[in-house]
Amino acid sequence: MQFSSKLIEEAVDAFSSLPGIGRKTALRLVLHLVQQSEDFTASFTEAIAKMRTGIRECEVCHNLSDEALCTVCKDERRNRQVICVVETIRDVMAIEETSQYRGLYHVLGGVISPIEGIGPAELQIDSLVQRVKEDDVKEVIMAISPTIEGDTTIYYISKQLAETEAAVSTIARGVSFGGELEYADGLTLGRSIVARVPYKLD
Amino acid sequence: MQFSSKLIEEAVDAFSSLPGIGRKTALRLVLHLVQQSEDFTASFTEAIAKMRTGIRECEVCHNLSDEALCTVCKDERRNRQVICVVETIRDVMAIEETSQYRGLYHVLGGVISPIEGIGPAELQIDSLVQRVKEDDVKEVIMAISPTIEGDTTIYYISKQLAETEAAVSTIARGVSFGGELEYADGLTLGRSIVARVPYKLD
Repeated sequence: MQFSSKLIEEAVDAFSSLPGIGRKTALRLVLHLVQQSEDFTASFTEAIAKMRTGIRECEVCHNLSDEALCTVCKDERRNRQVICVVETIRDVMAIEETSQYRGLYHVLGGVISPIEGIGPAELQIDSLVQRVKEDDVKEVIMAISPTIEGDTTIYYISKQLAETEAAVSTIARGVSFGGELEYADGLTLGRSIVARVPYKLD
Repeated sequence: MQFSSKLIEEAVDAFSSLPGIGRKTALRLVLHLVQQSEDFTASFTEAIAKMRTGIRECEVCHNLSDEALCTVCKDERRNRQVICVVETIRDVMAIEETSQYRGLYHVLGGVISPIEGIGPAELQIDSLVQRVKEDDVKEVIMAISPTIEGDTTIYYISKQLAETEAAVSTIARGVSFGGELEYADGLTLGRSIVARVPYKLD
């Protein structure tokens, strides 16, 4: 693409450095901003810049936070004896969205992956073990992706937690609610048969 | 969507105020920025902010420009006796991309549309007529969308230019190169038969 303006070109470069935004979309965004008031763009860039400089990790659970402690860790009404271990902050958001969980979180920052050079030391595992020991945690729920790396990570963490009082559980895996059996993948379907649960007559 | 952070929420609001970006995409972009260095976000917002404050309209053709004159108007090698009239700066980019045109441009800023309250006074028509008169322009090419509003605009401008020396032409319309006849829309196909051109044996 040829640009008559260096400024436009640099703004297009900036937008298209973001994931999932190509140069055509970037140009559309830039031309949109040009058509809005200068104040619109000023508040747009200010919100992004303020977010990036102000955002920090919660000192306890490593969730994103505006302050030293995140809103979940600060919330006195949450059950402090249960910790849900997740890979990323996105998982925290997904679980919070369900409104089904009232305990605390612990964000690992990824999973153990020797191929990508991510060992236990790169993840927030030591801080998790320390939290479990110090805060008298009763249960640690592993909400980790069911991949080889995820399973390795669950195994490693549960080994580390073996000496503590906490019970370790994993989230239930199986066929989705509303999902038809014939469309479920074989691995999920197979595991959901192996991990079948007794049917309760209410 | 629930956010544990006010800063994240405001940044998501900012991104999702852009066209074609929903809240899920906005969140993905924000989390991407969080994972990059602070410098990355700083140069991102700086490029956008600099673009918006620095960008201006070319005084002659109303194309976007970094300076008083745009790169096309400044270019001494271009044919100053031909002006291509377009609706928006996007059209300038599309035509420049073809490398087939070596004249100048004139960006109207839209087309006459009584329904949207856009009359000739809202568009850069007077400045076009003045340019044609003062700069001894020989040809004005109308590269305007073939809509009712577009045709009205072409009619209005050609009336205004009737008293000048300039010849008025419109871009050729017809079946696309590589396009199959059966998939061309009826109006285009009909017009392309009416406006048929003599076949030349080379």
